[in-house]
Amino acid sequence: MGKGRLEAFSDGVLAIIITIMVLEIKVPHGVALLVLKPLLPVLLSYILSFVYIGIYWNNHHHMMHTANQVNGAILWANMHLLFWLSLIPFSSGWMGENHFAKWPVILYGVNLIMCAIAYSILSDSLVKLHGTDSTLAKVIGKGTKGKVSIALYFAGIVSTFFHPMLGMAMYTVVAGIWFIPDKRIEVKVKD
Amino acid sequence: MGKGRLEAFSDGVLAIIITIMVLEIKVPHGVALLVLKPLLPVLLSYILSFVYIGIYWNNHHHMMHTANQVNGAILWANMHLLFWLSLIPFSSGWMGENHFAKWPVILYGVNLIMCAIAYSILSDSLVKLHGTDSTLAKVIGKGTKGKVSIALYFAGIVSTFFHPMLGMAMYTVVAGIWFIPDKRIEVKVKD
Amino acid sequence: MGKGRLEAFSDGVLAIIITIMVLEIKVPHGVALLVLKPLLPVLLSYILSFVYIGIYWNNHHHMMHTANQVNGAILWANMHLLFWLSLIPFSSGWMGENHFAKWPVILYGVNLIMCAIAYSILSDSLVKLHGTDSTLAKVIGKGTKGKVSIALYFAGIVSTFFHPMLGMAMYTVVAGIWFIPDKRIEVKVKD
Amino acid sequence: MGKGRLEAFSDGVLAIIITIMVLEIKVPHGVALLVLKPLLPVLLSYILSFVYIGIYWNNHHHMMHTANQVNGAILWANMHLLFWLSLIPFSSGWMGENHFAKWPVILYGVNLIMCAIAYSILSDSLVKLHGTDSTLAKVIGKGTKGKVSIALYFAGIVSTFFHPMLGMAMYTVVAGIWFIPDKRIEVKVKD
Repeated sequence: MGKGRLEAFSDGVLAIIITIMVLEIKVPHGVALLVLKPLLPVLLSYILSFVYIGIYWNNHHHMMHTANQVNGAILWANMHLLFWLSLIPFSSGWMGENHFAKWPVILYGVNLIMCAIAYSILSDSLVKLHGTDSTLAKVIGKGTKGKVSIALYFAGIVSTFFHPMLGMAMYTVVAGIWFIPDKRIEVKVKD
Repeated sequence: MGKGRLEAFSDGVLAIIITIMVLEIKVPHGVALLVLKPLLPVLLSYILSFVYIGIYWNNHHHMMHTANQVNGAILWANMHLLFWLSLIPFSSGWMGENHFAKWPVILYGVNLIMCAIAYSILSDSLVKLHGTDSTLAKVIGKGTKGKVSIALYFAGIVSTFFHPMLGMAMYTVVAGIWFIPDKRIEVKVKD
Repeated sequence: MGKGRLEAFSDGVLAIIITIMVLEIKVPHGVALLVLKPLLPVLLSYILSFVYIGIYWNNHHHMMHTANQVNGAILWANMHLLFWLSLIPFSSGWMGENHFAKWPVILYGVNLIMCAIAYSILSDSLVKLHGTDSTLAKVIGKGTKGKVSIALYFAGIVSTFFHPMLGMAMYTVVAGIWFIPDKRIEVKVKD
Repeated sequence: MGKGRLEAFSDGVLAIIITIMVLEIKVPHGVALLVLKPLLPVLLSYILSFVYIGIYWNNHHHMMHTANQVNGAILWANMHLLFWLSLIPFSSGWMGENHFAKWPVILYGVNLIMCAIAYSILSDSLVKLHGTDSTLAKVIGKGTKGKVSIALYFAGIVSTFFHPMLGMAMYTVVAGIWFIPDKRIEVKVKD
């Protein structure tokens, strides 16, 4: 079974997710510069989520590029990932509209954890199909980065009970460590 | 006539359907965890519909993969299927917002039946074009699973008059029997 | 310059147009079957517009399939077509919500005329680039069908001043004559 | 790393941006022709933004067509461009709903400047990867047109403080000079 349509469908869903988030930034009433002020947290929330979807697209792109084939389990693991990513506009919107209040920040963290788990299930299914000796398996590695991310998300959720800005800081750190596409992939593919 | 653009267009429409459904989960006012509670049925409704669109994409993917060509009738049979699928966000939203009340659950069932009929018209058109001896025809088989689904949807609609949860149970059962991509296809293609 | 990305972009825009129209069918408040009644004209309007976008996608598909190349003028002629098609959800929504009142029906007709003119500009640009002896030119023919459509739309608009249902009837007739993909193309390509 | 998926993803995002802008043209209440009058500035704003997104798609298409490869920096430079473009529906909507008032027109200009800067970062990354002797570098040239555009946007923003129509005139001039796909590319590629 070819991977082309899976990539195309994922690209479509990710492109829509990243774009409909902007609909949460409602056009304000009034023409003064000040009416934009309440939109600032919504914009910040949008930027973080945009970067996250960008990271997922980027890593998805890299991982699928190395894959040779897909099967039914992988199709559904991919759907599962898209499901959690599709909730980002909702959790991101709730967080932005409420100026990074406690529960919205926690929900956003839970959403990010679920995305990370779904991504790791997808990469595991790919390794299982291609074998642990495949280029793909070497490229994906032990998934340490993914496990560290989940731990940091969890720390972010817990610290949000003290102050939401601690949680946001954690989520931003995770975005930072994923920002640059995984060098391991580029290096190992070249070998 | 190539099937590439038909697949691309269908992927686009399905990707949009699956993603705009999330817009039905309106960002709530208030920051307490409790404000999420009324959204639970909307979320459940979203999950079921997400799985259904996922199933249709999956099976569409499998079926078209085996097809060699398309004609005008198939293009329109495909459009017809996309039409009924495009109504899922509406019927799913009405059902979720009304906590699985009788008429919304019935309408959702009718929508699912129409999708199933449209899918079976599409597969019939494909078999007609490729011939009953084609790999595609063998792969699609007698469409027993499709007929059973329609019967179960119908049973679901009827039982909703007694209690909507009976209907929902039926719809979930159908989703379950379609969840795993049709093994017949994978097996027969290998032969 | 390749035509692939132009096709992909057009598919994307058409897929979105056809799908966001469903957002005009607002989820009603109330659980009774009767609350759906006011949505009927919106649904009818949606069906007609869905068929129209389907026809445009279908014919666009056929025409571009025969094309070998594109240039700057064609890219913009295509954008121009997409612009008028992108207004269909608006004019269709206004018409449906107002139960096919006079001015909304007229505006819808004007929108359809502009789409038809834009389509004919696009096909002219393609013929100009490929030459009047090309397969594409033979396939497109003299554009009689396009001119008849424009005349019928115009007649529809004028007759709407007497009764909007006359206009709707005309628009439906035009949809009917385009419904079946242009047989000329299939025949002439086979020659 | 292939450029195909980057093109596909960009096409998807641009197709969605160009289409969801139409959602800003809210279906009016009332059936008289007059209810459309307040929508005129919204429509004008939509047309200008549609042309701008069209220009970006067109130039993106041309530039990527000449590119042979992409790397991580280019993927993110592209995301960065898509980010600023994704804000166009918002700034365009605010401008249209407020009949081209001062601050909305300024914000729109700032948004256009950010898009132009992001586009120039993307083209610089592409030149860096392909080398200054590559066809791509020759095609892109010194980026004079881009620098002139940024200067004109800036002039537009400043002159908006005197009268918003001056700003709008400037933005329209820039759209005009980009309207026709860069002849340099077509000519130099032919050499």
